[in-house]
Amino acid sequence: MKLYNYFRSSASFRVRIALELKGLRYEYAPVHLARGDHKLPDYAAVSATALVPTLELDGGERLGQSMAIIEYLDETHPEPPLLPSDALGRARVRALAQLVSCDIHPLNNLRVLKYLVRELKVEEEAKNTWYRHWVREGLQAYERELAQLPPSTYSYGPTPSLADCCLVPQVFNGQRFNVDFSGLPRTMAAFDACMKLPAFQQAQPSNCPDNEA
Amino acid sequence: MKLYNYFRSSASFRVRIALELKGLRYEYAPVHLARGDHKLPDYAAVSATALVPTLELDGGERLGQSMAIIEYLDETHPEPPLLPSDALGRARVRALAQLVSCDIHPLNNLRVLKYLVRELKVEEEAKNTWYRHWVREGLQAYERELAQLPPSTYSYGPTPSLADCCLVPQVFNGQRFNVDFSGLPRTMAAFDACMKLPAFQQAQPSNCPDNEA
Repeated sequence: MKLYNYFRSSASFRVRIALELKGLRYEYAPVHLARGDHKLPDYAAVSATALVPTLELDGGERLGQSMAIIEYLDETHPEPPLLPSDALGRARVRALAQLVSCDIHPLNNLRVLKYLVRELKVEEEAKNTWYRHWVREGLQAYERELAQLPPSTYSYGPTPSLADCCLVPQVFNGQRFNVDFSGLPRTMAAFDACMKLPAFQQAQPSNCPDNEA
Repeated sequence: MKLYNYFRSSASFRVRIALELKGLRYEYAPVHLARGDHKLPDYAAVSATALVPTLELDGGERLGQSMAIIEYLDETHPEPPLLPSDALGRARVRALAQLVSCDIHPLNNLRVLKYLVRELKVEEEAKNTWYRHWVREGLQAYERELAQLPPSTYSYGPTPSLADCCLVPQVFNGQRFNVDFSGLPRTMAAFDACMKLPAFQQAQPSNCPDNEA
């Protein structure tokens, strides 16, 4: 398999975690988002949406959208599972994943921040406040959701799930923008538990071949 | 079952479509978003995220996040299926659904538009341009994705799917903001095919008990 992605892209990071958790080897194909490589004709031939990540399967099929890719990996490589075995559990994990990937991340990705600055002439400080607002508000909702679930090492249950694949990259991004993570005990405990695992460490931006930090 | 929702909420509309397609009866519990009812203590007791929709099951469990709810309904009430029977097909349908629910809708929902106006002092016309920009750009990507798939009546295949549950409400919202839908032949053909079905007609905002239009 081949993963078109970018070290700092939160959605790319989610898929890298899932690939590592599954123990799947893949070729790393960097797409430099900050430089605009995703808008070049080469990448248009790979991805109709011009977004990362894209997972190219060994048969040549290309899959987009990080959560859809992770569900595909979980269906085709079931061990270890990234979703619970019961329908209600799966609904809980998917809802946590979507809280991050629908309610937080879309507001803070590069193309949106660029629109704020270029089209709406938003100042740097107001842009950063926007960023922190949505991350903090979203993670507070995540914490309230976790508070209604039984105690667990990870976001849901005793093993990492699709929810953790989404949470961890979002916390990384929030750290870059100095988001206030206070008052989020269960969320940050799940994050810390994930980061003790080799799969999450291996997938993190600082370990990527295109890392520039 | 009981659905906490709002007639104009795109995410609520998605779940109403799925319930109608499955032929499931439900109690309609209106939450007036424009008036701020979702922020009142009554609703905080229902939803930790203070977002709609919330589906309350007959056993009392409450589920959030529209795509997670629809997947739960599809797992627990398999007929008619809203996802294909093969893993690759499921990945394609989920990716289309997520293109709408992660790449378009989050940028245009009420809380984001309010932030633009109140916090960033964005003028009405610039706000509407923002809205139209993300819907048009997103639907153009949707069209490019459909162009790579075999011809089909709906977004994917000969029956409506999770992708159509997300597409149709997004087109409705775009219509309210006079989005340009030109050059989107397959996308709009899928929309038109859906709107010929009683399930989509029944679920639309104008048929909701809290409709004010």
